[in-house]
Amino acid sequence: MLRKRLIPALLIGVVCTHFAFAQTKPRARALGVPFEGTPGPHNAITDVAGVEVGHVTLISGEGELQVGRGPVRTGVTAILPRGKNSSAPVFAGWFSLNGNGEMTGTTWVEESGFLEGPVMITNTHSVGVVRDAVIAWQVKHTAMGQLWGLPVVAETWDGWLNDINGFHVKPQHAWEALDNAQSGPVAEGNVGGGTGMVCYEFKGGIGTASRKLSERVGAYMLGVLVQANFGLRPQLRIAGVPVGMELREGAYRTNETGSIIVVVATDAPLLPHQLKRLARRVSLGIARTGSVSGNGSGDIFIAFSTANLEAAQAQSVANVTMLPNQRMNALFEATVQATEEAIINALVAAETMTGVDNHKVIALPHERLKEVLKKYGR
Amino acid sequence: MLRKRLIPALLIGVVCTHFAFAQTKPRARALGVPFEGTPGPHNAITDVAGVEVGHVTLISGEGELQVGRGPVRTGVTAILPRGKNSSAPVFAGWFSLNGNGEMTGTTWVEESGFLEGPVMITNTHSVGVVRDAVIAWQVKHTAMGQLWGLPVVAETWDGWLNDINGFHVKPQHAWEALDNAQSGPVAEGNVGGGTGMVCYEFKGGIGTASRKLSERVGAYMLGVLVQANFGLRPQLRIAGVPVGMELREGAYRTNETGSIIVVVATDAPLLPHQLKRLARRVSLGIARTGSVSGNGSGDIFIAFSTANLEAAQAQSVANVTMLPNQRMNALFEATVQATEEAIINALVAAETMTGVDNHKVIALPHERLKEVLKKYGR
Amino acid sequence: MLRKRLIPALLIGVVCTHFAFAQTKPRARALGVPFEGTPGPHNAITDVAGVEVGHVTLISGEGELQVGRGPVRTGVTAILPRGKNSSAPVFAGWFSLNGNGEMTGTTWVEESGFLEGPVMITNTHSVGVVRDAVIAWQVKHTAMGQLWGLPVVAETWDGWLNDINGFHVKPQHAWEALDNAQSGPVAEGNVGGGTGMVCYEFKGGIGTASRKLSERVGAYMLGVLVQANFGLRPQLRIAGVPVGMELREGAYRTNETGSIIVVVATDAPLLPHQLKRLARRVSLGIARTGSVSGNGSGDIFIAFSTANLEAAQAQSVANVTMLPNQRMNALFEATVQATEEAIINALVAAETMTGVDNHKVIALPHERLKEVLKKYGR
Amino acid sequence: MLRKRLIPALLIGVVCTHFAFAQTKPRARALGVPFEGTPGPHNAITDVAGVEVGHVTLISGEGELQVGRGPVRTGVTAILPRGKNSSAPVFAGWFSLNGNGEMTGTTWVEESGFLEGPVMITNTHSVGVVRDAVIAWQVKHTAMGQLWGLPVVAETWDGWLNDINGFHVKPQHAWEALDNAQSGPVAEGNVGGGTGMVCYEFKGGIGTASRKLSERVGAYMLGVLVQANFGLRPQLRIAGVPVGMELREGAYRTNETGSIIVVVATDAPLLPHQLKRLARRVSLGIARTGSVSGNGSGDIFIAFSTANLEAAQAQSVANVTMLPNQRMNALFEATVQATEEAIINALVAAETMTGVDNHKVIALPHERLKEVLKKYGR
Repeated sequence: MLRKRLIPALLIGVVCTHFAFAQTKPRARALGVPFEGTPGPHNAITDVAGVEVGHVTLISGEGELQVGRGPVRTGVTAILPRGKNSSAPVFAGWFSLNGNGEMTGTTWVEESGFLEGPVMITNTHSVGVVRDAVIAWQVKHTAMGQLWGLPVVAETWDGWLNDINGFHVKPQHAWEALDNAQSGPVAEGNVGGGTGMVCYEFKGGIGTASRKLSERVGAYMLGVLVQANFGLRPQLRIAGVPVGMELREGAYRTNETGSIIVVVATDAPLLPHQLKRLARRVSLGIARTGSVSGNGSGDIFIAFSTANLEAAQAQSVANVTMLPNQRMNALFEATVQATEEAIINALVAAETMTGVDNHKVIALPHERLKEVLKKYGR
Repeated sequence: MLRKRLIPALLIGVVCTHFAFAQTKPRARALGVPFEGTPGPHNAITDVAGVEVGHVTLISGEGELQVGRGPVRTGVTAILPRGKNSSAPVFAGWFSLNGNGEMTGTTWVEESGFLEGPVMITNTHSVGVVRDAVIAWQVKHTAMGQLWGLPVVAETWDGWLNDINGFHVKPQHAWEALDNAQSGPVAEGNVGGGTGMVCYEFKGGIGTASRKLSERVGAYMLGVLVQANFGLRPQLRIAGVPVGMELREGAYRTNETGSIIVVVATDAPLLPHQLKRLARRVSLGIARTGSVSGNGSGDIFIAFSTANLEAAQAQSVANVTMLPNQRMNALFEATVQATEEAIINALVAAETMTGVDNHKVIALPHERLKEVLKKYGR
Repeated sequence: MLRKRLIPALLIGVVCTHFAFAQTKPRARALGVPFEGTPGPHNAITDVAGVEVGHVTLISGEGELQVGRGPVRTGVTAILPRGKNSSAPVFAGWFSLNGNGEMTGTTWVEESGFLEGPVMITNTHSVGVVRDAVIAWQVKHTAMGQLWGLPVVAETWDGWLNDINGFHVKPQHAWEALDNAQSGPVAEGNVGGGTGMVCYEFKGGIGTASRKLSERVGAYMLGVLVQANFGLRPQLRIAGVPVGMELREGAYRTNETGSIIVVVATDAPLLPHQLKRLARRVSLGIARTGSVSGNGSGDIFIAFSTANLEAAQAQSVANVTMLPNQRMNALFEATVQATEEAIINALVAAETMTGVDNHKVIALPHERLKEVLKKYGR
Repeated sequence: MLRKRLIPALLIGVVCTHFAFAQTKPRARALGVPFEGTPGPHNAITDVAGVEVGHVTLISGEGELQVGRGPVRTGVTAILPRGKNSSAPVFAGWFSLNGNGEMTGTTWVEESGFLEGPVMITNTHSVGVVRDAVIAWQVKHTAMGQLWGLPVVAETWDGWLNDINGFHVKPQHAWEALDNAQSGPVAEGNVGGGTGMVCYEFKGGIGTASRKLSERVGAYMLGVLVQANFGLRPQLRIAGVPVGMELREGAYRTNETGSIIVVVATDAPLLPHQLKRLARRVSLGIARTGSVSGNGSGDIFIAFSTANLEAAQAQSVANVTMLPNQRMNALFEATVQATEEAIINALVAAETMTGVDNHKVIALPHERLKEVLKKYGR
């Protein structure tokens, strides 16, 4: 069990989950949740060639909240569109379904059409430290697109489990998440920025999924990574089944205070305005899990394409490729499907956690889920 | 004169559905489709006090397409926020989920925060005639907010069943829809702008639903009206059940060419930026029925509030009321729920239609739907 | 004089100004107004290869307003990005500085990144008739990008001089403007959609200008066409000189009721999000003439690029070219400069007009302008 | 520890300009620059009752750049909409003319319509530290609107004079700027976030101005504060006069690398969508000084209203007041005029500075300016 192996590390606080990675836990598909579409080899955002993901997980302390001392249940997740060894910008677009949250750097993404570095995700009150740390890292690696850096850093709020006003995330945590990023399988659940997150009043966190398009529509890969921290229990639907109405134990909220950050990657050659179209489709994937995107939710999405490596680097005129609009439907489907599955993957992977003031958030019970799906013919 | 030649056709062709209205057909709820939330007395957008709806339905001719002669399967629907007897603007906001469509007047809605007249819905190639006709109607009724009119007219494409390039909608049809608008029950299915529409490859058209909020959250009313003309069969989900995968008969499309226009009305005192929030939630209601909002789809939504009657009419400073953001969640839920139900209502109400070139689009079979819902435990 | 030759045509109402064209009137440069930058050969939007412009001018009747009978002072202007003989879409972006106006079709421009037909400009209450007429014209020429048309039609309000509620623009006027469009010099002032327009309380209308970039920055051409109908007299600045404060005669307004539509064309290979950047710069060119973009003003701009002919027509993946963002500054300058000059050209070209209820709007007096410029050292 | 090493520098380095304030330097008006409109008593953003401004200025070191050691030429400016003693949110709207910059928190401003804390301005690479510091300050003062904070922090790039990658701004500098904020006169030029800034290749920085509307249009106050760091010398226009073409000494740039942040405050009762309209007008004020908003420029604006104190605090329904749209023109004028004057004030106040690698940026020479204005009859 991941959790067990983590416990010794808790004593010193920082857990580099990528070392600990050997995900033997079942994922949503393995539990029999029916999803549409065909995933890539890892069913992860890293199925898009070049994309690397790094997590730093901070877990320490127990019991009553002492601001500045803990308990700590937080972290940082880094998504590098072209991996650590390339700072070439990618075309990107973003969308805010409900903007009670932060994603820095989006004004320049919108203006330039480019994402010029990693996407970082952490807790709400650590966006600043991570942002400046990314600049320092870019300075060190001479990896800024301009003379200045405008990093993209997003967040969700983990204050129910984490001492969020203790500001436990430090620059080195951001650097570590970046330096440790890798391709291949991605740890899910209570890791990285998702460590202290809650989703439909079950334990949430990081989830990922991917879709491989058929040859007929271009054989493109599309991957999604979510930091899921949203939703009220009665809203939860899995594969159309009202799971949240059936599994009521452990629910504790009266009002939504959550959020979801979604990162969409693809190797399809999309231009910035087309990537914005993808980002907008994320809403539809979230909707399938039941959310109405509450007032307290920061539901902010960014989509990028790893195609067109040279686009930002041309001196005179860049040659770029573009998928025609009329061929985008399969990518829309893939975005909706992979978003839905990534959220359910986060729920399935996350384990029961106790944090600040002994708040306890239970994991989605796998066996109960199977029973409910069966009851509804799925 | 084109107009003259049309007149005989009109005699048999125009069905003024408000006279014909006596809806004995079952609606989705009556078929046992489970929906969340509590509808208003008519389960219609007209449950919001003051809102009136008028339809003009144009049906004439059969067989092979002869552009300009038919077959005609189209119409106009008018939604008057405060009814025929008040031209007072309403606060409004809009959102485009996928902009392959038209809704005129939105630039001024966005800028001013006001909707200054009716919302009209017709076919794609008749937006212009209806727009100018609204101005003529406003001139006649001295009902323009300014010296000029910037009417809101939206559309979906009915060219599969209707001679859309024959331009059969005339100014008087728009005037008739406006003059005949009324409160109370709203005709659904093959009426008004929805006459020739197709939804998930079943016959689509106009649908409506409403939600009455509980006293605890303000007892507000929220109503939705859709002109539903979107979706591929395999995508269709009803109450989370993959109905479109089960009922494959009559499907004929390989690519989405549809659209959906959604109008949201409420008596809750929302400001323009808050109404935009409602409009954005419409996406989530559509998603529940399975759509991924295809490239060919014009999915455009407008939301207005009938509160704050005096807002646009103050000479110096207007006193207005505003629901706090943190109290909007129940309205978000109502929007998602009523949108979902209005779409299903359109599907349930619409009847099999044969149009241009004998294209036949079948109605959603009610008994088969019940069977499928039962199979999935609903 | 253009005006004289037009008078016989007035008797029948429709003046096809492109036949009458032989512009011997001075333009702003010829009066000594100092402008920055280097214009193209015609100092017109048609300097961008392929762009064609057509005007239809409707002038008839005099004296008291009789709605439906006149006086008529209006028209239609058509801008065809690739001329009459190509319906290939162009990349495009749009921006609304103040949205008290209409530009139909922008929702699809925003979504798709393409402008799929001409840009039409007329009076506010004739947008609809022109819109549907464009579809009919596209149907006839099999020139629609999709199965349906979503034309771009913009407007400004000419009701001070024109019987705007008489709806004098008919479909054939739109067709004529399209069919008569041509490259080369562009008639300015009281022509086409600009016929009845007023600018800074002088007679306004159509104006155009262009800029040829130096070889060092790509030798691109950029052209602007405006329909200028905005501004209060005291605001008017020409070349930084407070001309409107010096020339007060004939001013009659207490409140802005005007608008300006601006079309920017370039052969530089810009993507849609980059064209939106150009459109936003139009604001800065308008500002140089003194406007603060009043509440009553519909200040709406669209920019397109004639490069990338094949972009919308690829079956699988399109090869397109893109100017790097860091090379756009010269195009920003050109947009600001050409917008400023096009507005002043409209003022210089337009001649005194008397219209509805004998409202008389005087032309900018050329000699007085020269005196004022001299007084301020320009 | 980095912090420790900084402390000695702070002793000589931090100039708390609010103590040092006794601005005897002339402002632009005093030099005879003609501006339109009537300023408030201080001709500053603080003329809007309640608004407080605090600066922290960091100046230390000389000569060659040693990253982390200096030279340091930077700072932080805080604008508190209702002063230090009220954390009540204000209605707000924002706009990006060219988004090569950062203003955090705007996603929530856009969504909620509220600005829930101060606006902070600093250098590009210190946005993060200031952002998290604001949260810590809000936690301490229990001044967060929600359980979490989403501070608004903006920036311009001072790397020509300042060791920007040395990250010299620390949390306490942000706190100090907040704690020291006050009403009354506002220091301009090389202070606060503006310390190391460059404008039209003269020394730039902080500038401010205000306009008092006449009784007839409501007697409202509107104030503007800019952090001006943009423009190429030849572009500079003052009062319409091509000053930058006349005063060429000291120009050193070939490409724009600057930005401008503008904050607009008013006591007029505007709703969020109306404040966005004000923010958009800032573009027009900037344009009057000659800028074309270059690709490298982060031109981002926020506008707020101090009216409607109770709007965000109502439990059920809030009573708010709204200025009718048709009465906004005077506020549009005031925004344009005050933006223009604030920029010129920044130029007039800033003094010649030498920074990193002995880069020297000269002040706008006052006497030469007067001569040029005279030459052009102003």
